[in-house]
Amino acid sequence: MTSLPSHAEVQRLHAYWQASNYLCAGMLYLRDNALLRQPLAPAHIKRRILGHWGTCPGQTFTLTHLNRLIREHDLDLMYVCGPGHGAAAVLAHAYLDGHYSERYPECSRDEAGMTRLFQRFSAPGGIGSHCSPHVPGSIHEGGELGYSLAHAFGAAFDNPALIVAAMVGDGEAETGPLAASWQSARFLNPARDGAVLPILHLNGYKIANPSLLARISHAELRALFEGHGYRPCFVEGDDPPAMHRKMARALEQCLAEIRAIQARARGGERTPIRWPMIVLRTPKGWTGPRQIDGHAVENSWRSHQIPLPDPAGRPQDLRALEAWMRGYRPEAWFDADGALAAELRALAPVGDRRISANPHANGGLLRRALDLPSPEAYSQPVRAPAAADASPTQLLGNYLRDVMRANADRFRLFGPDETASNRLAAVFEASGKTWMARLLDSDADGGHLAADGRVMEVLSEHLLQGWLEGYTLTGRHGLLATYEAFAHVIDSMFNQHAKWLDKARRQGAWRAPVPSLNLLLTSVVWRQDHNGFSHQDPGFVDVAANKRPEVVRIYLPPDANCLLSVAAHCLRSVGYANVIVADKQRHPVYLDASEAARHCQAGASAWDWAGTHVSHEPDVVLACAGDVPTGEALAAVALLSSRFGGLKIRFVNVVDLFALAPPTVHAHGLTDEAFDALFTRDKPVIFNFHGYPALIHRLCYQRRNHVNFHVHGYREQGDVNTPFELAVLNGIDRYSLAIDVLARVPRLRHCGAAVREQWLARREQQVAQARAEGIDSDDIRDGRWPTYEARRD
Amino acid sequence: MTSLPSHAEVQRLHAYWQASNYLCAGMLYLRDNALLRQPLAPAHIKRRILGHWGTCPGQTFTLTHLNRLIREHDLDLMYVCGPGHGAAAVLAHAYLDGHYSERYPECSRDEAGMTRLFQRFSAPGGIGSHCSPHVPGSIHEGGELGYSLAHAFGAAFDNPALIVAAMVGDGEAETGPLAASWQSARFLNPARDGAVLPILHLNGYKIANPSLLARISHAELRALFEGHGYRPCFVEGDDPPAMHRKMARALEQCLAEIRAIQARARGGERTPIRWPMIVLRTPKGWTGPRQIDGHAVENSWRSHQIPLPDPAGRPQDLRALEAWMRGYRPEAWFDADGALAAELRALAPVGDRRISANPHANGGLLRRALDLPSPEAYSQPVRAPAAADASPTQLLGNYLRDVMRANADRFRLFGPDETASNRLAAVFEASGKTWMARLLDSDADGGHLAADGRVMEVLSEHLLQGWLEGYTLTGRHGLLATYEAFAHVIDSMFNQHAKWLDKARRQGAWRAPVPSLNLLLTSVVWRQDHNGFSHQDPGFVDVAANKRPEVVRIYLPPDANCLLSVAAHCLRSVGYANVIVADKQRHPVYLDASEAARHCQAGASAWDWAGTHVSHEPDVVLACAGDVPTGEALAAVALLSSRFGGLKIRFVNVVDLFALAPPTVHAHGLTDEAFDALFTRDKPVIFNFHGYPALIHRLCYQRRNHVNFHVHGYREQGDVNTPFELAVLNGIDRYSLAIDVLARVPRLRHCGAAVREQWLARREQQVAQARAEGIDSDDIRDGRWPTYEARRD
Repeated sequence: MTSLPSHAEVQRLHAYWQASNYLCAGMLYLRDNALLRQPLAPAHIKRRILGHWGTCPGQTFTLTHLNRLIREHDLDLMYVCGPGHGAAAVLAHAYLDGHYSERYPECSRDEAGMTRLFQRFSAPGGIGSHCSPHVPGSIHEGGELGYSLAHAFGAAFDNPALIVAAMVGDGEAETGPLAASWQSARFLNPARDGAVLPILHLNGYKIANPSLLARISHAELRALFEGHGYRPCFVEGDDPPAMHRKMARALEQCLAEIRAIQARARGGERTPIRWPMIVLRTPKGWTGPRQIDGHAVENSWRSHQIPLPDPAGRPQDLRALEAWMRGYRPEAWFDADGALAAELRALAPVGDRRISANPHANGGLLRRALDLPSPEAYSQPVRAPAAADASPTQLLGNYLRDVMRANADRFRLFGPDETASNRLAAVFEASGKTWMARLLDSDADGGHLAADGRVMEVLSEHLLQGWLEGYTLTGRHGLLATYEAFAHVIDSMFNQHAKWLDKARRQGAWRAPVPSLNLLLTSVVWRQDHNGFSHQDPGFVDVAANKRPEVVRIYLPPDANCLLSVAAHCLRSVGYANVIVADKQRHPVYLDASEAARHCQAGASAWDWAGTHVSHEPDVVLACAGDVPTGEALAAVALLSSRFGGLKIRFVNVVDLFALAPPTVHAHGLTDEAFDALFTRDKPVIFNFHGYPALIHRLCYQRRNHVNFHVHGYREQGDVNTPFELAVLNGIDRYSLAIDVLARVPRLRHCGAAVREQWLARREQQVAQARAEGIDSDDIRDGRWPTYEARRD
Repeated sequence: MTSLPSHAEVQRLHAYWQASNYLCAGMLYLRDNALLRQPLAPAHIKRRILGHWGTCPGQTFTLTHLNRLIREHDLDLMYVCGPGHGAAAVLAHAYLDGHYSERYPECSRDEAGMTRLFQRFSAPGGIGSHCSPHVPGSIHEGGELGYSLAHAFGAAFDNPALIVAAMVGDGEAETGPLAASWQSARFLNPARDGAVLPILHLNGYKIANPSLLARISHAELRALFEGHGYRPCFVEGDDPPAMHRKMARALEQCLAEIRAIQARARGGERTPIRWPMIVLRTPKGWTGPRQIDGHAVENSWRSHQIPLPDPAGRPQDLRALEAWMRGYRPEAWFDADGALAAELRALAPVGDRRISANPHANGGLLRRALDLPSPEAYSQPVRAPAAADASPTQLLGNYLRDVMRANADRFRLFGPDETASNRLAAVFEASGKTWMARLLDSDADGGHLAADGRVMEVLSEHLLQGWLEGYTLTGRHGLLATYEAFAHVIDSMFNQHAKWLDKARRQGAWRAPVPSLNLLLTSVVWRQDHNGFSHQDPGFVDVAANKRPEVVRIYLPPDANCLLSVAAHCLRSVGYANVIVADKQRHPVYLDASEAARHCQAGASAWDWAGTHVSHEPDVVLACAGDVPTGEALAAVALLSSRFGGLKIRFVNVVDLFALAPPTVHAHGLTDEAFDALFTRDKPVIFNFHGYPALIHRLCYQRRNHVNFHVHGYREQGDVNTPFELAVLNGIDRYSLAIDVLARVPRLRHCGAAVREQWLARREQQVAQARAEGIDSDDIRDGRWPTYEARRD
């Protein structure tokens, strides 16, 4: 173990901390006189003072000490800033270590650059008060709170040399996702993965309340983290010299424990693991103003944002601000040019060892493309459209198995206890499920549990999504497969990640694009008949479609071969959030591998084999998106053409949902000419959609023929039904579609009424029959269910 | 303390448990021969076997013992079933205690009724395998997992005599919301509230994996719950007689501890509280088939669903099923008619003491309407439209303060550490924030913390929403105010609650309507300029709009007085999920109290004072929804009329979003005549919307004039901007609107180009100026910002 800091080193550490705190205060308040070379005057104060002081000193303190640890041990260490609005602290350190100025040369290491940094902070046209893609060294959006620890673990997986220091705010710690994230340590394999060092920052207060964990007993706090499997190391106090020594000692000790755990595991021992963590208890707004107008500020929620509200307007605030900032002795730490003194510069690591410059935190730099097999080899042979069935996810499982084999250092599959349920179990031939907790003999019987497993299963969509985000943001690849309805659990995480990707894209070249986030929504609404209403919700794609079109892609492959094509494409892509919706049940396969590839490439195309009289201008377009709606639309063609032999039907399938959007809105949008060529300019379009109908209207409403679009989709009608009854309740069944065609094609209207009644009666009868037989989803293709024939004109 | 069960009583308890397990197995498998009066044959087996056995025996065991506790102590006790797919167990007990047959007389207490129960379970047209509104005694939807404990605490608040036994699944325990829910005990006041008895059911396995908490050491498990502030009481084993004794003892002991805690608190002592909880460790699928084909079933994930997959097809499965079910000795517990033997009937409580019939679990029965002051008294006087400003939420805070005073037993306000930030701080004059953890002297200085506080603050939207759901489902009233962007955190909870309300509505009269769930989304997208992109997301209303129109209402009050009117309406309503979007910043007030009431009642109306030449047919309709967009639309009128004096503008404000939907879709929808009268049949409508534009199109697309609707709204463009620049980036600013009018009104097109250029230049200049001044949101109304004048024709 390295020696603890000498008195002189403590003084240097303290100086560095003072310099960083000075910068934080400057970012909040100053637009001029950055180094206080003149007496502070109202004209130096920002017109609008925005930002958050409370969390800063604890973070700058920690970063100062992490720098020491990196230097002493030449560590590959990155930092995740969990507390809300903590950017000032991270920016201060990035500026002090020089990396910020490398990325943003206008903020040079002199008084002019410092002034620009102060001016841009939390100012219109400037940068935010929480971490964002703008901040070098950050992979964690600091806006919403709750995901820091999950991101940290995601970053640590498969990075054996990396240590991720994760600062967790005591406010954030109250959120559900963070509360669940402590479990992550049970999924970290010290033999293969890096380490995460959680630092719970108990500064005692949130926006306007005490934090709960700061107000429980010491014994309870210790018990809580021991219960989570950690060894908590307490660093508590407010006396800087003593605290510097305690923090240095704690970090050394934690590092030694991490090294020991890793050494044992890497030497082949499998012993119980108790990862170290730090509980850092310091006053909120530590070293800031003690009081204002007789009210406590330091160590109070009043220091959360702006401790002195109006220095430009209130002389006493101005005086207090000046005294506070001069107390950090800027003149001692910054030279005549405003650059950090050489003695202090030496306290920061250099090059890529700087926390702000750690390459993992700019994961695109480290991205290695996946070695991807061709999806063709995994496809279902297609003698004729719909002649054979396949479970789309089952074929995908075979593909992912080999993706996993070929990329054993950089691909993981994530799922909430549903990998097998979602029929992806073939992956277990390549790798088990990560499991570091206790094993029983019985687990050997089909449990697929393994310390080196690459399938991540835990019953928390939050945790899985957070891990996956952390994994991809550090340059690796993955896919999260989850029940469609419960994808809404991570709506907000998806939103934040899409926003991150969009802002990262706009940062300029220095942020290298990271692998896409891939979500597979399966166990879909139309096959949740037995689970009932609570499991029926196809609205995640609506949430996704609200994000920037530059970063979002939504695919609804109609069959297994198309799913393979889409999945391979998504796994190759960078910088996107890809959402794929595909069922796990068996469905007909329509397109062979090369047809599927062409169809997916086109995004939407007419299936001539499924239409009627396709060499003529159609009477009606039957369009569809999604596997179940496609099957029903095909059955509607069979119904219609059996009755109206002369009816000219064009059959269009949409696999890439944004093909419907104008090309001005989304890069995948069909040109107006291509759209009109598919959907006509004036013929009725009966569109059978997987989700809520509004999404199709929204994508098409600027198209010429939109007024003739009639969209069928989920209408929030469901219960414990047969699959067919569920389709009927929501009007996506073959009969509803065919009847809609009758109503929309002028020359069928005269004969429609009688046929309509017949079809409704037949439908009624079939609903009753299926219900009586308790028919299963799979029975649809087992001949126990009215089927349709693939047609060729 | 009551004596522990004698040997004879243990035998009776065991019999009751066997009878309930028998019913569970019957629900899974049988469509005939319900009491096994004949040898079991394939014809007796359901065609489709669906359901979940694994969780049942642990729950039936617990319910059997809770019955005993209720009888012994005459308890008011309700049960929350957390484990996934646990309905069979709850239904079995509801059937045994007779209440199920009272609600559903077709399932009478005889062989025919039992057969019908078996047939309907998890069958098409029947009932689901997880708890739902169908299940008497349940307030908790068992589909998604994670919210059981939060619901239980919500039910216990302000119900001092109630005990809520909350069974938590060890799968569910891995979710974020559940992990955070353990904190709830820190917010339960034993002097005022009821008790929650968590029963963590460690049956060891999820769908396909071990559960994490079942595989950590005993010491860690104990530490974890001690850390959360509980005293865990372990009931572990698989030998029924021993387990009956342990469970009876544990429940007696927990009850005694609860009583002691309550007695101390109600006697005025404020001592540290350690609530009891039970850790129940039993084998998954306990008492079910041990093995199948050489693989373990009992005490394995293989018992999660159907332990014997194919009794109709595989003779060995049939034999095993018969042996298993006969082992429960149905002939001993059900009489010749198929009714439960009298000796066992005596083991269930009677009347409302039955868990299935507890009135709190049918909370509408206990609902007492709020005593609501008239909102007029809280309104901002309006000399002329926009002559005065007010913060909408600040006025609402005054109103809620008095609602709270007048309803101190049945109204609570919920918020994630943001009540003050959201400017609702007036409520603290009526009540503090619930706080049971440690208090410091400094808290007296503005902390507003109180053991008997009625403002619930914790930094977890999940926990708050779960508490509020539990509180309203048991008949009480509340409102959750939260940041608009982060409302997405609870998307999925909202979905599930809306589905619950919709299904409850369809249960028939026995489920009495509960108070509405009220959400106030504030700190809105347009005033998140300083927080930047991550805080900008108005999409929650899109999620809400996907739910059944029968239960969802969405309001965007344009000013403070309208917010008061809407809020009073929502607090009076029952059975809905109300979403209100209103900013906290100061905005002009346009309508006085009675005008506001009329406007809100109408849902949408023309504001003649804001239009021009309003006695004529308009050239254009300027419509708006939301406070910020309304202000910009008014400013656009000023711009346009200053330049084009003859232009006839109709100004329409929409406060009730569903007024736009057809009346066939939503009860609040305007008739087509009324819609056309407001929006014309053929004139351009420039619509300035608070959220993503697609929602307006979606609501209006079936309207005659929809083709002429041009909607401005949030386009996912934002950063740290001035409010005005944010509006400009997304095209909802006055200039964008006015320029759109130029483009849409035919007679303005010839002169439009020059004016357009002027306006764009002016806008550019104003954006730059505001940016340079670092202008604040509030400055818009401080004269530092170009304003508009209220107009009268």
